Amino acid sequence: MTHRPGNYLFDAYFTQAAMRDVFSDTGRIQGMLDFEAALARAEASVGVIPQDAVGPIEEACRAERYDFDALREAILNSGNSAIPLVKALGREIKRQSPEAERYVHMGATSQDVMDTGLVLQLRTALKLLEVDLAELAETLAEQAQRYAETPLAGRTWLQHATPVTLGMKIAGWLGALTRHRQRLVELEPRLFTLQFGGASGTLAALGEQAMPVAEALARELDLSLPEQPWHTHRDRLVEVASICGMIAGTLGKFGRDLSLLMQTEAAETFEPAGQGRGGSSTMPHKRNPVSAAVLISAATRVPNLVATMFASMPQEHERSLGLWHAEWDTLPDIVCLTSGALQQALLVAKGLEVDAERMRQNLELTHGLVLAEAVSIALSQRIGREQAHHLVEQCCRRAVAERCHLREALGRDEEVSAEFSSEELDRLLDPAHYLGQARTWVERACAEHQSFMRAR
Amino acid sequence: MTHRPGNYLFDAYFTQAAMRDVFSDTGRIQGMLDFEAALARAEASVGVIPQDAVGPIEEACRAERYDFDALREAILNSGNSAIPLVKALGREIKRQSPEAERYVHMGATSQDVMDTGLVLQLRTALKLLEVDLAELAETLAEQAQRYAETPLAGRTWLQHATPVTLGMKIAGWLGALTRHRQRLVELEPRLFTLQFGGASGTLAALGEQAMPVAEALARELDLSLPEQPWHTHRDRLVEVASICGMIAGTLGKFGRDLSLLMQTEAAETFEPAGQGRGGSSTMPHKRNPVSAAVLISAATRVPNLVATMFASMPQEHERSLGLWHAEWDTLPDIVCLTSGALQQALLVAKGLEVDAERMRQNLELTHGLVLAEAVSIALSQRIGREQAHHLVEQCCRRAVAERCHLREALGRDEEVSAEFSSEELDRLLDPAHYLGQARTWVERACAEHQSFMRAR
Amino acid sequence: MTHRPGNYLFDAYFTQAAMRDVFSDTGRIQGMLDFEAALARAEASVGVIPQDAVGPIEEACRAERYDFDALREAILNSGNSAIPLVKALGREIKRQSPEAERYVHMGATSQDVMDTGLVLQLRTALKLLEVDLAELAETLAEQAQRYAETPLAGRTWLQHATPVTLGMKIAGWLGALTRHRQRLVELEPRLFTLQFGGASGTLAALGEQAMPVAEALARELDLSLPEQPWHTHRDRLVEVASICGMIAGTLGKFGRDLSLLMQTEAAETFEPAGQGRGGSSTMPHKRNPVSAAVLISAATRVPNLVATMFASMPQEHERSLGLWHAEWDTLPDIVCLTSGALQQALLVAKGLEVDAERMRQNLELTHGLVLAEAVSIALSQRIGREQAHHLVEQCCRRAVAERCHLREALGRDEEVSAEFSSEELDRLLDPAHYLGQARTWVERACAEHQSFMRAR
Amino acid sequence: MTHRPGNYLFDAYFTQAAMRDVFSDTGRIQGMLDFEAALARAEASVGVIPQDAVGPIEEACRAERYDFDALREAILNSGNSAIPLVKALGREIKRQSPEAERYVHMGATSQDVMDTGLVLQLRTALKLLEVDLAELAETLAEQAQRYAETPLAGRTWLQHATPVTLGMKIAGWLGALTRHRQRLVELEPRLFTLQFGGASGTLAALGEQAMPVAEALARELDLSLPEQPWHTHRDRLVEVASICGMIAGTLGKFGRDLSLLMQTEAAETFEPAGQGRGGSSTMPHKRNPVSAAVLISAATRVPNLVATMFASMPQEHERSLGLWHAEWDTLPDIVCLTSGALQQALLVAKGLEVDAERMRQNLELTHGLVLAEAVSIALSQRIGREQAHHLVEQCCRRAVAERCHLREALGRDEEVSAEFSSEELDRLLDPAHYLGQARTWVERACAEHQSFMRAR
Repeated sequence: MTHRPGNYLFDAYFTQAAMRDVFSDTGRIQGMLDFEAALARAEASVGVIPQDAVGPIEEACRAERYDFDALREAILNSGNSAIPLVKALGREIKRQSPEAERYVHMGATSQDVMDTGLVLQLRTALKLLEVDLAELAETLAEQAQRYAETPLAGRTWLQHATPVTLGMKIAGWLGALTRHRQRLVELEPRLFTLQFGGASGTLAALGEQAMPVAEALARELDLSLPEQPWHTHRDRLVEVASICGMIAGTLGKFGRDLSLLMQTEAAETFEPAGQGRGGSSTMPHKRNPVSAAVLISAATRVPNLVATMFASMPQEHERSLGLWHAEWDTLPDIVCLTSGALQQALLVAKGLEVDAERMRQNLELTHGLVLAEAVSIALSQRIGREQAHHLVEQCCRRAVAERCHLREALGRDEEVSAEFSSEELDRLLDPAHYLGQARTWVERACAEHQSFMRAR
Repeated sequence: MTHRPGNYLFDAYFTQAAMRDVFSDTGRIQGMLDFEAALARAEASVGVIPQDAVGPIEEACRAERYDFDALREAILNSGNSAIPLVKALGREIKRQSPEAERYVHMGATSQDVMDTGLVLQLRTALKLLEVDLAELAETLAEQAQRYAETPLAGRTWLQHATPVTLGMKIAGWLGALTRHRQRLVELEPRLFTLQFGGASGTLAALGEQAMPVAEALARELDLSLPEQPWHTHRDRLVEVASICGMIAGTLGKFGRDLSLLMQTEAAETFEPAGQGRGGSSTMPHKRNPVSAAVLISAATRVPNLVATMFASMPQEHERSLGLWHAEWDTLPDIVCLTSGALQQALLVAKGLEVDAERMRQNLELTHGLVLAEAVSIALSQRIGREQAHHLVEQCCRRAVAERCHLREALGRDEEVSAEFSSEELDRLLDPAHYLGQARTWVERACAEHQSFMRAR
Repeated sequence: MTHRPGNYLFDAYFTQAAMRDVFSDTGRIQGMLDFEAALARAEASVGVIPQDAVGPIEEACRAERYDFDALREAILNSGNSAIPLVKALGREIKRQSPEAERYVHMGATSQDVMDTGLVLQLRTALKLLEVDLAELAETLAEQAQRYAETPLAGRTWLQHATPVTLGMKIAGWLGALTRHRQRLVELEPRLFTLQFGGASGTLAALGEQAMPVAEALARELDLSLPEQPWHTHRDRLVEVASICGMIAGTLGKFGRDLSLLMQTEAAETFEPAGQGRGGSSTMPHKRNPVSAAVLISAATRVPNLVATMFASMPQEHERSLGLWHAEWDTLPDIVCLTSGALQQALLVAKGLEVDAERMRQNLELTHGLVLAEAVSIALSQRIGREQAHHLVEQCCRRAVAERCHLREALGRDEEVSAEFSSEELDRLLDPAHYLGQARTWVERACAEHQSFMRAR
Repeated sequence: MTHRPGNYLFDAYFTQAAMRDVFSDTGRIQGMLDFEAALARAEASVGVIPQDAVGPIEEACRAERYDFDALREAILNSGNSAIPLVKALGREIKRQSPEAERYVHMGATSQDVMDTGLVLQLRTALKLLEVDLAELAETLAEQAQRYAETPLAGRTWLQHATPVTLGMKIAGWLGALTRHRQRLVELEPRLFTLQFGGASGTLAALGEQAMPVAEALARELDLSLPEQPWHTHRDRLVEVASICGMIAGTLGKFGRDLSLLMQTEAAETFEPAGQGRGGSSTMPHKRNPVSAAVLISAATRVPNLVATMFASMPQEHERSLGLWHAEWDTLPDIVCLTSGALQQALLVAKGLEVDAERMRQNLELTHGLVLAEAVSIALSQRIGREQAHHLVEQCCRRAVAERCHLREALGRDEEVSAEFSSEELDRLLDPAHYLGQARTWVERACAEHQSFMRAR
């Protein structure tokens, strides 16, 4: 079989190269081979196989020795990747030591190899994710503080509402990330666990030595020993998929917010421009949000890939046919897309361009109406809530009808003017004075972030 | 508007009545009213509103006082359920105290009311789920021990493999449930949190008293105070949806296994028969797995409802239009379907009928071949692995070719007979002697279950 | 069992009342009863049952005669809605004619009743959908023509691009609807087909009279006779779900576009305001897109409900357990949500408020840059493409750098001025003169719409 | 950038090599280049560009000339694959003719290139699918006829019911396939359509020559001209995804049925065994359904990939950011998985092994109870329906209670024996005499298949 053309035109854009390596053919095969090598060491340590067999087995457990095209073809007949790999591994060991070949894979079943290999891949993958999440969180914490006093229009239902700050928006993204990181911490003891059960999960082939071998194997791989083999109980894998889904969702919100703020009409924040990113030769004003596109795309695709993982849970009896297979490409895709979205989020978070002046201008788009609430509240402390509300409402209506600024309508109203000086009115209509707890939210999100960092 | 015909023909079958009550119109409205009453108490305690206003507000905060048909209609114009409810609430308070009416809902926004109300509903819902999960786990722990020594065919790819025990199968279901319960424990501090941010999330309308009010409100409702309002950060809701999805998935596997074991050809276990369940008058032999149908159905529907929750994460700015709305019926459906599946699982787990004799017979369907591994291993301890394997393989082939039992083929083989007495061969081909760690798995799952129970 | 509280607070908002009636408990039960009545007539016409039995059976086939709470409870034991209904129907017939009772449901199985009943419901539902689609298409055709010359900024990646017209945008929505209507036309002969197979689908119980009865029954119900019973071949139902999903997707795009155009920063089109829709007392400038929210919500939920229909296709053997059940509430939800979205789309399409002046202003946001392409092309016809492109690019850069209008930069450029008079430049920078085939697209979409209407 | 390791260990198993080629990087790039070459020819034919430019452009439009690694990297900055390709194409043309370079891609936008390229890929892909579907349908038609008289147990809820035939089961799969093929026929005129709109879809850059160019381009590519560009109206792509989803669903049912029939307990049909497929060295009796696993896996994954296509419909304005991107890998995956499932279905359908004798034996598992209906009906023609039903029910109960065959219980009953001779009873209890319209269903499905073939 000749090597067929690949299908990864969009890989550099949608995924992280390092993560794709983890979930490459090489990564998969090496994960399985790491299991086989550790099994040999574990069985030798317990005395199930001779110590001499370990060296030749370990020696053969290197992914680069194997012909992936041949493996791909062989999977057609075997229905999984372990059977052909174990056969090829046997041949490879035999070259060095026919004796050792007899001791490879003893007591294990195909799914033991594939699942434990996958857990090892996931451990590496989660480390990559966690490093990126930490860096993104740290970056957002800095940016949240930098823009803690930068007001912009709050927007509900995509309509202007009372002002918020950019710092508070960023802190919102940060807060969600901290929760996701906490979720990963809680998941890990469940996920980093050995799969080892033999043919039907009883380890019967290893007789009395089953538990000692299982324990030694878990130690070798630095994995925990589960309460029983989990060949058809896939909740651990679904959980890691779910957390990736939540990360992708949060990054999707980040991308959605960004792309809306980047609209020509808003023009408040921008993705970094470097090296012609998102540029257009024919339209020099255009700066396409090419990173936000990845974030939104991942948040659109990952939910349904996660659904496949959930849908694959009802696996039959001691080994599923079909539902197990449905996981093989799906879980890697989930992690790769999440990781790719993280790269884009990092790039944007670090190089975020902010036009605070434009934010100020946009806050004036409703001619002060977004601050009517502020006036109403201040007024009610002087003349009572009911009357204050009534007065301000009248001024608002007048401002809308006469297309003037609320400041003007208020200034022209005698009852209002009787209570507030011109300076006071100016201040009441200054968004910077109606930001409520925006700074508190920044501080609280940063404090949670710092506290998480310290605990790790 | 007249009351339209309902659509819940299958509700009693697919959901739990108590859970449907939690997520009924009454449940929703009461959750929102509980928020308003607590807000009044909190604001009075801090001095934002007069203490006198609390009584009339609390008095009006009873769901039964409201006209749901009118609310439904009003939602058409308001686009959410809080605006019409707060209006109706105002009218209701006014009847008793026009003064108090002015102090209701102060500083809050619609989504504060709806989201906190939802969190209160979810708290009640999770209590229901946890009680059922505890009962199911306890039941499965008992059944796992009862059937710890009951062998049946292990089945991989739906083909017979080496034997397992029914206890070990049950322990597998139990193990997954214990993990789900642990996940719920970890989720709760994140989920049981206040939503309170006012118009754009800054609580600006409450000025200096914002944080004291927020803290008092959280205390009143026994919720935590989040790092900032989470109007458009929905990960907490997605997480509870995901855990429900995992529970539904595990119950789906339970239902899948059961329905396969109940097949006319297998006939090893049965759903309880009581009161004509699953019966057919024309086919007296039939016992339809009506509970398993619910379990499989839930495991088919819930994954995609969960996907909707994930897909709804990228909510725009400070309040989403559309994605927030997509959650309103979806999350309740997820919890209700999960709860309904739990009822059926409980019913089956408690009344599970087991035909151990038939399991024995079915183990003979391959005429001993599923135990070839056992013979091979025993033989290899006497004559070496290679030769043992070769000998047994020959006997297996002979058994298949001559359609005789492997016991017979082995007995006729001189080399084998030279090593094993007739009694030894009988024992080797007895499934009960090749169960490996099946009992260990039962003990480990039960120990984890006990340990979880003690920790709670 | 007492009537439990309903769960349809959002029903009036998210679904159409008439469609919810079709898929109410009454609608379901009546669909099944219509099958039973027609079966009696068909069997009498063929001579399988006496003609006398028909009257009493028909008489009993009225949904209002049945106790839905009792049916709901009975489903718990039977696992479907037909068994308890047929029993209740028998009792109801017996009251009038014990003789006739013996002849009801002869040769049919539960799924025959439920599936054919569903097809009858779907036929009514599709009529409702088609009426609404026709009205929406007609409305959009009118609006497309009304706004065929109304320019607004084209937006790609949410950035301003060359101008388009509102008419062309509307024509785009129309074009998709016409295709959906065509799809419904193609679907109907497949979907409107009888389900009638008896216990295992062979109609064996009816012996020689099976085909005559089946044919008469199909005639009675005005359905086609399928090539064989389709108890576990669900593609017809999946297809109707898919088309609903496509309609919901198109309406979602409509809502997405609308909500973006309604943003405070864009303010180009608005949902109709009538009766305080989307209003806010505290923020008089706000007009929340409450209809767009429904459109986006439906386009978020329906895809995953459709996925459930696809996921439910691999139904086992002659009757599925679980996958069939997964359809029961899912398909009605799909059709109801689609229908609800259609109501909101109709409301908006009819009452669409357009601010053409604001569109003009927004087109100037890039200070003419969106029309650089127009200048470049005109210029290239005079001085060659390369040089033209180069000159215009320079002017664009200058305009951006100096924050002036492109018109000004062009006017100041000697080479450009040498080619174009001031009037010519004004004209080149007038969006109304760079609309390309916008009108053609309107005409083509309207023509396809008209042609579809004529063909029906 | 060095070529990163691929990720297609399971590609040979899950997809068809020829289909993966269509959707390989080469296939994508070639599709886009085919658009560019055709555009040059079309524009030359209309006189927009010089005829001389065509040769050099066409010459450069060969995928093998491009450095895919460089394209992958460049996509990072451009956010789509067309911008870097058009640049590289320009450089490639320039090598031969600097003059011609100026005339490439005139009036087109990136999405025109990518979408039309995709339509061309899909046209090739659908041809592959249709050939396979035709072959599968033909094979199933033959098999349905071969096994038209082979009885086996009907199974509802996975419980034995009245007998069916294997031919009728196969005809059911065939019937669904014929409908899918019809759907593809109906889809094609909608799908095989040009994408060509320029920057915002108006084709403004081409001025008066826009429509002539568009028409010539459509002719060149043998595509229709749509009513307007469909940059953000994706229903055509969703429709092809949906039909693939339906095909995958039907094949999933085929796989589900097969895998159930292959169970050790049923052992009625088998996947072809050739070359050690699904074999196990340690368990010589095992024949793993490795093809069914692919069918079930595809039917689990495709629904959620289809959901992503539906979820990606609400694309903003004139070009989406993110939702368009979500399609790029998803639609190819859908078609590839469907095609891969088709390969496995073909392999099984052609080599299906049937154990008709075992089917007979399994029909006896209920000791005749599945034929109680047959006896009851025959008896009712002699002694009336009520009494017949009562008598048979009694015999059934006796058979169950005494664990004897229904034949024996009937034979021992005096009233029954008075009506039926021993031979008559034997015949009534012979499944081959209670197959109803099983043969009719085979004939009807084959007739529809033949009729479809003739019409093509």
